[in-house]
Amino acid sequence: QDWRSRKKVQIFQYVVLKWALALLIGLGTGVVGCFNNIAVENIAGFKLLLISDLMSKEKYFKAFAAYAGCNLGLATIAASLCAFIAPAAAGSGIPEVKAYLNGIDAHSMLAPSTLFVKIFGSIFGVSAGFVVGKEGPMVHTGACIASLLGQGGSRKYHLTWKWLKYFKNDRDRRDLITCGAAAGVAAAFRAPVGGVLFALEEAASCLISLDAYPNSEQPNYLACSRWRSALLWRTFFTTAVVAIVLRAFIQYCWTGKCGLFGQGGLIMYDVSSAAASYNIPDIVAVLLLGVIGGIFGSLYNYLVDKVLRTYSIINERGAAPKVLLVIVISLLTSCCSFGLPWFAKCIPCPTTSTVSCPTVDGSGNYKLFQCPSGYYNDLASLFLNTNDDSIRNLFSTSTEKEFHISTLFIFFAAIYCLGIVTYGIAIPSGLFIPVILAGACYGRLVGRLFASISELDMGLFALLGAASFLGGTMRMTVSLCVILLELTNDLLLLPLVMLVLLVSKTVADSFNKGVYDQIVKLKGLPYLEAHAEPYMRHLVASDVVTGPLVTFSGIEKVGTILHALRTTGHNGFPVIDEPPLSDAPELCGLVLRSHLLVLLKGKNFLRDGVVLTGEEILQRFAAFDFAKAGSGKGVKLEDLDISEEEMEMFVDLHPITNASPFTVFETMSLAKAAILFRQLGLRHMCIVPKAQGRPPIVGILTRHDFMPEHILGLYPRIECHK
Amino acid sequence: QDWRSRKKVQIFQYVVLKWALALLIGLGTGVVGCFNNIAVENIAGFKLLLISDLMSKEKYFKAFAAYAGCNLGLATIAASLCAFIAPAAAGSGIPEVKAYLNGIDAHSMLAPSTLFVKIFGSIFGVSAGFVVGKEGPMVHTGACIASLLGQGGSRKYHLTWKWLKYFKNDRDRRDLITCGAAAGVAAAFRAPVGGVLFALEEAASCLISLDAYPNSEQPNYLACSRWRSALLWRTFFTTAVVAIVLRAFIQYCWTGKCGLFGQGGLIMYDVSSAAASYNIPDIVAVLLLGVIGGIFGSLYNYLVDKVLRTYSIINERGAAPKVLLVIVISLLTSCCSFGLPWFAKCIPCPTTSTVSCPTVDGSGNYKLFQCPSGYYNDLASLFLNTNDDSIRNLFSTSTEKEFHISTLFIFFAAIYCLGIVTYGIAIPSGLFIPVILAGACYGRLVGRLFASISELDMGLFALLGAASFLGGTMRMTVSLCVILLELTNDLLLLPLVMLVLLVSKTVADSFNKGVYDQIVKLKGLPYLEAHAEPYMRHLVASDVVTGPLVTFSGIEKVGTILHALRTTGHNGFPVIDEPPLSDAPELCGLVLRSHLLVLLKGKNFLRDGVVLTGEEILQRFAAFDFAKAGSGKGVKLEDLDISEEEMEMFVDLHPITNASPFTVFETMSLAKAAILFRQLGLRHMCIVPKAQGRPPIVGILTRHDFMPEHILGLYPRIECHK
Repeated sequence: QDWRSRKKVQIFQYVVLKWALALLIGLGTGVVGCFNNIAVENIAGFKLLLISDLMSKEKYFKAFAAYAGCNLGLATIAASLCAFIAPAAAGSGIPEVKAYLNGIDAHSMLAPSTLFVKIFGSIFGVSAGFVVGKEGPMVHTGACIASLLGQGGSRKYHLTWKWLKYFKNDRDRRDLITCGAAAGVAAAFRAPVGGVLFALEEAASCLISLDAYPNSEQPNYLACSRWRSALLWRTFFTTAVVAIVLRAFIQYCWTGKCGLFGQGGLIMYDVSSAAASYNIPDIVAVLLLGVIGGIFGSLYNYLVDKVLRTYSIINERGAAPKVLLVIVISLLTSCCSFGLPWFAKCIPCPTTSTVSCPTVDGSGNYKLFQCPSGYYNDLASLFLNTNDDSIRNLFSTSTEKEFHISTLFIFFAAIYCLGIVTYGIAIPSGLFIPVILAGACYGRLVGRLFASISELDMGLFALLGAASFLGGTMRMTVSLCVILLELTNDLLLLPLVMLVLLVSKTVADSFNKGVYDQIVKLKGLPYLEAHAEPYMRHLVASDVVTGPLVTFSGIEKVGTILHALRTTGHNGFPVIDEPPLSDAPELCGLVLRSHLLVLLKGKNFLRDGVVLTGEEILQRFAAFDFAKAGSGKGVKLEDLDISEEEMEMFVDLHPITNASPFTVFETMSLAKAAILFRQLGLRHMCIVPKAQGRPPIVGILTRHDFMPEHILGLYPRIECHK
Repeated sequence: QDWRSRKKVQIFQYVVLKWALALLIGLGTGVVGCFNNIAVENIAGFKLLLISDLMSKEKYFKAFAAYAGCNLGLATIAASLCAFIAPAAAGSGIPEVKAYLNGIDAHSMLAPSTLFVKIFGSIFGVSAGFVVGKEGPMVHTGACIASLLGQGGSRKYHLTWKWLKYFKNDRDRRDLITCGAAAGVAAAFRAPVGGVLFALEEAASCLISLDAYPNSEQPNYLACSRWRSALLWRTFFTTAVVAIVLRAFIQYCWTGKCGLFGQGGLIMYDVSSAAASYNIPDIVAVLLLGVIGGIFGSLYNYLVDKVLRTYSIINERGAAPKVLLVIVISLLTSCCSFGLPWFAKCIPCPTTSTVSCPTVDGSGNYKLFQCPSGYYNDLASLFLNTNDDSIRNLFSTSTEKEFHISTLFIFFAAIYCLGIVTYGIAIPSGLFIPVILAGACYGRLVGRLFASISELDMGLFALLGAASFLGGTMRMTVSLCVILLELTNDLLLLPLVMLVLLVSKTVADSFNKGVYDQIVKLKGLPYLEAHAEPYMRHLVASDVVTGPLVTFSGIEKVGTILHALRTTGHNGFPVIDEPPLSDAPELCGLVLRSHLLVLLKGKNFLRDGVVLTGEEILQRFAAFDFAKAGSGKGVKLEDLDISEEEMEMFVDLHPITNASPFTVFETMSLAKAAILFRQLGLRHMCIVPKAQGRPPIVGILTRHDFMPEHILGLYPRIECHK
């Protein structure tokens, strides 16, 4: 009676805790998002004001020195943080989050040091004028915050909360990180629905991992079966919290208390003032835009891949070459940004503009640069601004002639190339902003060229151009579309945006894979595709089983277990009951390495065949001993201290065996098995023989066994066979 | 060589056909949506103009007679169509679509006659002034169009296209209907993203049904493994097509060529002109609104359920009582709509209004009714309009004092009750509009009451009230939120809408289930929940196996098969190879009833144990014979004509056996098995014994075995046990 009521209380605690954590993740990610924006706007704003001040005094060389110096300093700080403290913080972070949600556990990805470097590295990197975004890092930051909260703090830095210990298992942590990633997207783009969709698209198929727990009735089992709507709902709640935090922050900053933080900070490009009416010629123009955008997008992916391969040679040599590479790219960026605007002609200020021309404060459409008063340099307006402001300038509506065609062309070429060479250096660097920037410029360029046949506004062309580039590089579908809509706050554009995304994705898909998939592959993470490769249809499940199978009996000698744990790296071992325990050998279930370690640590050994009941054994452990072990920080093999005498004793594995592991017949088509494996988010799949009278298990398949590299290693000629 | 290349061509054809069908579904649904809107606006507009004409001449009784007469006539047509031609067309249609996507095959739901009645019944029903929407029927219409296209037309009406025959199998049809449902939502609400999300939320987990096909390598097998992103993408495309069709239609109608079709037709309530700034007191008000809205919503569900149970007694008595019931409700509605406005006071026209007051044409904010010139009757403005226009009036921003509090109260009470008594009568009747109408009125009412503490616009309050009611009744999450956003075209409201939905859904969930789930249950459809019931944790898979298991051997006597087909209703039979064919009895696979029928029809019988190879047998069938059989219109048992002599012959079942059926051990927890079953969208799950030396299969579980009714019938005391 007491046990049962306690369990109900625990379930209630557990549910409350989950929602509380969702709230905390939302608040945390929202606050970090705000902080990030204030910091970038203030640092970059100060830098840009300094330069425009020097430029207006015609001290051109001094201005360049100041500009390049600031950039270099900021870049060096970012690179040092990244190279010396947390190398995992380099890059976008979205591939890592994608891989994590796919079921790959790589621990340092979500460590506290990574979080710290991701936040500050991203601030300094973006402020340093690199062609990088803060969006990808923001997604990673959200995931890190969720992971940190879910672990109950960091043991390394002695920040732990006891009452968060409920969450030390795979599934709960993955749920939390789903929320965190969604919150990150929401904070990065001010797109709460987009965030939910992103999480849904990336994580939807791996939300249950049925084989991760022993059969004991932990309170999370009930919740596990309700994963779907409950998690969706909680993710939704998290992003709503983020949206409210951001709104409160913006309202606070409108009162002018955030220093140089202007409207520019939180991205939101309002194009709704442009009338969205379109006809057949417009649609033709848009289709063409999509096709070319798709080609440019896939070319971008190709080049990023090449550059990453080159950089990885440099980056492997240690921290110093990494920093040096960052310095080189920083100087290159500074030269481009400051040098190229000299090629642009001065344009007289428009008389009808409602904003001041030339611009006086940090951001704005009309930069004076070297021009006389009453004129502006359109190329400088794009280069010498934060990336967010440049995009806003490109998206601005009813400003058809603001940018000269040659300006747009130079800017496009420069940003496209700089974006490619910047990704992969040792700073946290998002890919969204470079792609949107290049795409918007491309769109505006196309718009100018098509001005004779299409009457769409230049701002809309810029938006569609950005959509085509995003579709061509990222290849995300619904979530990308929703993010774009939330960014631009105009739903009437939806059909056009959808059309462009469809066309560009389709075109680009015929050349290569999405940029995040490429990066995941380059990093060597065993990412499982949602679909099976065609050649898998010619194999059956037992074809890819390799290596000797290590099995235990239901009551096993301690020495045997220890030997198996030491000599193999397997995480799951089948348990087989043999004749003394059952009539014929039968598969009892699967036992996990982490649970074995806890059991051995507990030292409940038997001298001979005296069998304790499961209840008795489990009572010797606290309720969450096994749950904790799932986090990867549990008992280590080295922690065990087992004497010679104990080695000869026996231990009953039944209480910790998962008695309903996921099994398939050896004759099942490998393609089908692969889909099941991915669909159910498994870690181990037991292959059982079809005919009777053979050992009750043929082998275990894990994630690695489904990798194309592994299968093609075993059957090199199978692709030709097809 | 030839075979291989032909297959590639077929795959290409198949992919092209899929996209072409998606295009056709989008076009079809879009056109029907436009037609529906034009028809409703013109019929209802004509009726309303007639009445306001008579009212302005002070012929009050004549006006009432005309109004009630028109309503009655239209209602009778709608009810007769529904009662005599297609009873399945009554009601919303969303529960049926939900059930279909959940995996339940109920054929008449998607028949051509249902489509016809759904379209015209909905037009007449909505025009007749009932408190019903055209949104639910639109979703059903989309699904019907998809089904019809997928079947290659209707055999009954001799409209068939040969080249569409590729699609006669379960999975492809389900994919198509997913697209169709999404298109329906997109056409109903002009919400393309909402449509995709609706389909995703409802269908995501049942998109592969791996056990529906024999092992033979049909071209769809490859595509099956790519279901996820490809289907999402195609659905997205379909809704984009719908959006474009609707846009083109609206642009055409703006030129005035659509008769009385005004702006009112395609719902889109623009509240973006209201400034969306809010503070703490506003949020408190909104929370309260959500809580009360949730309570009202769940009460609505409770009452609808009661009313439906009452009506089903009447409706079961045949067509005439059905029509009579519709007539009674129509008269009641007419009396309310025409009678209640007499209680409202005349209000002087606002001086600042930009629209004419009193209104001169069909729709509008300011109905004259019985008032003198220069005044308007606010209650008549709500009652004597189409439902769409009433909602638009309630959502109108910057019109704080337009409706008197007593007016809002009367209207709310009337609509809430009328909505409840109207659902369930024999006309196609959507639930969205009644709920939005009542909710918007409730929201505006609360807004008036809270005017002292909150400064939100009344239009926003109306929107949030509608959201709270929708959350309280429908309980959909992300898709509902997105649909609301697309309806109102203002993303800045997102956090508030999310908050209201969260609160009202949470409150309502503590009382009862969503209205669609209730209706599905009432209709007795075996709908599988995404989660397992708690008591399932106390059972294992073999506990719910009932009835005698009918198995075949690999080479089976024709008579035995025929006998089994005649005496059982099973759809799947396990095939077991016994000692002459294998060393020990082993489970060979699962064979489907429909495939057996095709095989028997083909009459490839053997006189004795002479075994043909699978290749030989399959070559005697055309490639798509088996695929066709899946549509439920294939070979019937009565079609078979087998002689006495043939009954004694044998047939080889191996070629049509699915050799990798989905199996679980008998000891697997039932909760786990239920999740797997739902997650994988299975139709049959084979239960295999754990110990060796027993028959190789224990039983087969189907959808019905997982129904709570079935399990609780077997173990009546299990819920107490828990």
